[in-house]
Amino acid sequence: MENLAYYDGRIGTVDEVQVPFNDRSHFFGDGVYEATMGANGVPFLVDEHLDRFYSSARALDIHIPLEKPQLKELLIELLAKVDGDTHFVYWQVTRGAAMRDHVYGDDMDGKLWVLIRPQALGSFRKPVSLVVAEDKRFEYGNIKTLNLLPAVIYSQLAHRAGAAECVLHRDGVVTECAHSNISILRDGVLYSHPNDEHILRGIAKTHLIQACYRLGISVIERAFTLDDLYDADEAIVTSSSKFCLPVGQIEGVAVGGRAPELLSDLQDEVIAEFRAHTGSTVLD
Amino acid sequence: MENLAYYDGRIGTVDEVQVPFNDRSHFFGDGVYEATMGANGVPFLVDEHLDRFYSSARALDIHIPLEKPQLKELLIELLAKVDGDTHFVYWQVTRGAAMRDHVYGDDMDGKLWVLIRPQALGSFRKPVSLVVAEDKRFEYGNIKTLNLLPAVIYSQLAHRAGAAECVLHRDGVVTECAHSNISILRDGVLYSHPNDEHILRGIAKTHLIQACYRLGISVIERAFTLDDLYDADEAIVTSSSKFCLPVGQIEGVAVGGRAPELLSDLQDEVIAEFRAHTGSTVLD
Repeated sequence: MENLAYYDGRIGTVDEVQVPFNDRSHFFGDGVYEATMGANGVPFLVDEHLDRFYSSARALDIHIPLEKPQLKELLIELLAKVDGDTHFVYWQVTRGAAMRDHVYGDDMDGKLWVLIRPQALGSFRKPVSLVVAEDKRFEYGNIKTLNLLPAVIYSQLAHRAGAAECVLHRDGVVTECAHSNISILRDGVLYSHPNDEHILRGIAKTHLIQACYRLGISVIERAFTLDDLYDADEAIVTSSSKFCLPVGQIEGVAVGGRAPELLSDLQDEVIAEFRAHTGSTVLD
Repeated sequence: MENLAYYDGRIGTVDEVQVPFNDRSHFFGDGVYEATMGANGVPFLVDEHLDRFYSSARALDIHIPLEKPQLKELLIELLAKVDGDTHFVYWQVTRGAAMRDHVYGDDMDGKLWVLIRPQALGSFRKPVSLVVAEDKRFEYGNIKTLNLLPAVIYSQLAHRAGAAECVLHRDGVVTECAHSNISILRDGVLYSHPNDEHILRGIAKTHLIQACYRLGISVIERAFTLDDLYDADEAIVTSSSKFCLPVGQIEGVAVGGRAPELLSDLQDEVIAEFRAHTGSTVLD
């Protein structure tokens, strides 16, 4: 198939599958999601994404209609149906379908959705540009919800400026980007925002930190400021679809590029893990 | 019809109408909405709701596919199709349908949705109970978006406690309720939160304030604290579906009831306006 959509047992292309009018995603964005890249038919780090998925759902009292091993099996089975070597693998659960009401029944069965499409894995060696915006999001940032309007606003802001991402701050303290985490290298140490309610605990960020541990690079989980970011030896944007991208510019100002070897070592570690896990050699 | 669902030109019951998989509401909650009560085939204060609807859409760069007069006509035409005398009249626009991507095309056509169902107008003389929660929502509260997960969380909290609503505060300063505004009467003056990014400018709140002006009751638009709320002569919850409800209890503590005549005068004004506008006599 050229792409695949799944809703509550229905399977077709994205253009074929239809969703009942009263799914609660329509009125409340009432659901949580996950996304990872697939290569060689293997969804990368799927167990960790599934762990986070069930945690997000639990935090919102949403009932996922499958057990974790069954959902993993379903994702791998659906991934095999789609043309291509590397894929964007996305899934979500919405609270269920019922007449619109803020209040929900305790016995609602969640609706499972999957979206899989071919997606190339670009090189992530080339530095990207960022724009900056005030972080006006809610304080449920540690839950991967479908309430993503602010992420849409900030992403569009970046897109219009020709930038790859938008870095967010609260009173000058950097939180994360619109749909990525951001960390900095300074004097050989990686600084990364602690996992609190202002950021999503990125799987890619978690693995960047683990790569640091393997390489003997100290990690300090402490929020840093915009000034720290502009002054960083390197700034690194991490996400499950783009892995780890170095930052070259923020709002037109040159940033980073002062610890290229350390950066390169970290990227090599990330690539090595991806290759070992998926058996794919597409990433360079 | 027993109820009516409309999506982008399709009309049926809520159980019949289906929505394309890639509508952006599904992945981002990317849309805005309005709701009012209909009586005698007249959607109450529909012009003001439409004004706010177009303002919300404009704030998010969402294109409503109809002009305001045509949308009004459509709503009245659809309302006439549904059984019953009084109705919940709900409509929303989502940014459009496209393969999932935070970034959107500038030429996207919004998708219009309508939901209409019979709904009784209860008496609003009986005092209601509230619970209290910290306001953790984003700072786009002045836009009536579909990113309503926090409102779901707070409404469920109220429901589980047997309360009608959940009043929210930021560091002890009251903002609004999960899906209503809240104002207080104290020494003959109505205090109401100013219309900033922390609250939605309620149409019912706006009309409560206008009722005050007609009755010679001073209005101070200033945020008040939880302590002020507990000490109020009367606390009043306003919304488009419940009009204005007096508060009798908050977290089990008796509140209000100390300015019953003023409250009653205000409620009479609100009823009079509803009757004049709709020609209906159902509200008492």
